[in-house]
Amino acid sequence: MGLNSFQTSGNSPGHPCCRIGILGFGHVGSAVARRLSGPDFLPDLELTHVCDRRAREKRARYPESADAVAWTDCFDDLLSSDIDILVEATGGTGPAADYVRAALLAGKSVVTSNQQVIAHHGPALLALAERQGRQLRFEAAVGGAMPIVRALSDGLSGDRFVRIEAILNGTTNAILSRMDAIGCTMDEAIADACAQGYAESDPASDLDGVDAAAKLSILCMLAFGVRVPPGSIDTRSAAGVSSEDLADALRDGRTIRQIAYAEIDRSRLALEVWVAPRVVARTSFFGATTGPENAAVLTGRYAGTIRMAGAGAGGDATAVAALGDVVAIARDRAAIVPAPVLVNPKEIGGLDDRKLAEAV
Amino acid sequence: MGLNSFQTSGNSPGHPCCRIGILGFGHVGSAVARRLSGPDFLPDLELTHVCDRRAREKRARYPESADAVAWTDCFDDLLSSDIDILVEATGGTGPAADYVRAALLAGKSVVTSNQQVIAHHGPALLALAERQGRQLRFEAAVGGAMPIVRALSDGLSGDRFVRIEAILNGTTNAILSRMDAIGCTMDEAIADACAQGYAESDPASDLDGVDAAAKLSILCMLAFGVRVPPGSIDTRSAAGVSSEDLADALRDGRTIRQIAYAEIDRSRLALEVWVAPRVVARTSFFGATTGPENAAVLTGRYAGTIRMAGAGAGGDATAVAALGDVVAIARDRAAIVPAPVLVNPKEIGGLDDRKLAEAV
Repeated sequence: MGLNSFQTSGNSPGHPCCRIGILGFGHVGSAVARRLSGPDFLPDLELTHVCDRRAREKRARYPESADAVAWTDCFDDLLSSDIDILVEATGGTGPAADYVRAALLAGKSVVTSNQQVIAHHGPALLALAERQGRQLRFEAAVGGAMPIVRALSDGLSGDRFVRIEAILNGTTNAILSRMDAIGCTMDEAIADACAQGYAESDPASDLDGVDAAAKLSILCMLAFGVRVPPGSIDTRSAAGVSSEDLADALRDGRTIRQIAYAEIDRSRLALEVWVAPRVVARTSFFGATTGPENAAVLTGRYAGTIRMAGAGAGGDATAVAALGDVVAIARDRAAIVPAPVLVNPKEIGGLDDRKLAEAV
Repeated sequence: MGLNSFQTSGNSPGHPCCRIGILGFGHVGSAVARRLSGPDFLPDLELTHVCDRRAREKRARYPESADAVAWTDCFDDLLSSDIDILVEATGGTGPAADYVRAALLAGKSVVTSNQQVIAHHGPALLALAERQGRQLRFEAAVGGAMPIVRALSDGLSGDRFVRIEAILNGTTNAILSRMDAIGCTMDEAIADACAQGYAESDPASDLDGVDAAAKLSILCMLAFGVRVPPGSIDTRSAAGVSSEDLADALRDGRTIRQIAYAEIDRSRLALEVWVAPRVVARTSFFGATTGPENAAVLTGRYAGTIRMAGAGAGGDATAVAALGDVVAIARDRAAIVPAPVLVNPKEIGGLDDRKLAEAV
């Protein structure tokens, strides 16, 4: 059941606003909400709905939402609302894919930060989006603020990629580079990462490579056009990396990073793909990737090597990626299907007699 | 006058092909042509026209073009042709802007690798493209294969940028990093860059910063939404950097790079913007940018720092950027205005009686 009835805020004529609903009001969802209602807001985007299991409690902590945003703990309320774009920021696997599917079926475009959903259900959901004439975008699902999804699927689509090497898990990178920088144990580095907000109390799926494998699976789809189930990726855990291992590496001018690697041999249609802790030179591009950063080295047959790096964790950075997707959909929508400018009955009722007289 | 009459190649029904004309058959134009007709071709893109001042001579050197491509030395032939996209790869300033304007007016979308055209006429041409319902894209004009135009205008559009630091001229970077690597003079490094195809015999506009200033002007437009005439950018030449300067820098673990810098203070609406040779740490991101590479460090209020680097010169690398734009336009065109599937009268004429009987 919804917490309050939905309101229709009046769009100014000639400026079709794009109406946005957020599903999941955690780090990413709340950062997206802050940006949509903050000082650096993006024009023609309007946050109208938020859905979260604990909507009542979170709403109280988010006073900016005031009257303009309808809060609900019921996903069906989002489906039946007039939002144009759903920002899915729940994380996890299970129901998230169902949410995305239902939203597309209800005619919404979807922006997701959920790498598990795209890694496991991406092709089917993208096909559904195309059938529905809607968009499904997922820049925030891989690489945090580093715009790698767009680079592979759009900017560099003119190349023929042969290799991806990347740091895709910001939490593990923050832990390993902390151990490297101050010589602490992994437990101490995990505690620090938790304190900084880069890690959950049990970062097992980060250290084990499960998270990076899901992201690498997505990159293989984009760069090579092949489907690699995340579970089929050879994944070695970084959980066993000790301060002694790092000290040994440091003595040789090297350090340890969790590397995600994929290389395709198109002549044999063979793919080498793995996630594992690896020794790298301290002064190398990956060695210089510290804290919760992500980084990637993409090798194409024609453009050679492209390097990119950026914040791989944190609500604000991930929100930038999600908002870039929202803006792209809003632009597309403005170009293709301008929303009809409807007169809002409530607002007409709200005009006082003097204004009405003037208007007439 | 055109060199031969234009042919209409039949599109296979259901697969609307995007027809492409190339203006300027130099390093970039010929690399785009090779890709469009080579083994790693991109589906649904068809090179149909090439226009070059020396069309007759260049056609002879490009046997792949065979029958499928119409060559001309007359730009009007491109305007009156049925191409969907013009790839403008002439370089220089003067007429190039007129070519782009004329193509947009003739209903073509345009992809350009010409930074001078966009730096000096970008806003007017983009406005014209929008009025015409066509696209003007220019990923290849800045950063070579590094997808920085897309990153700023699309992927990172959700951020609020405050600073750009970049290496934007591949020729100068190849020269400076060659001097640094082998301790040679600038003249020797220039000769080497010419031999490698990274520089023209007189790389004055590269070393003087004129080229980087034009590119920086474009990045300011994309990142800050402000117009900075390239001529107003404080530009110091790198032509005077000596092998002694580099030797001095190297002794301190540093080196010299041509840096393009822009920082905006939005509260005062003040912009600091310059291009100059600067001392940087050898192990820094810019110090590690060698040969004809380009690199950029983008700082946003929300995503923090994004780094990217990639080949900044060379026909194949620049062609990747141009082809990414072509693909983006072709996708858009497919989504918005599917080309009507017209029966080609010539093909009907070519059916033999038996086939005709079967079809009926």
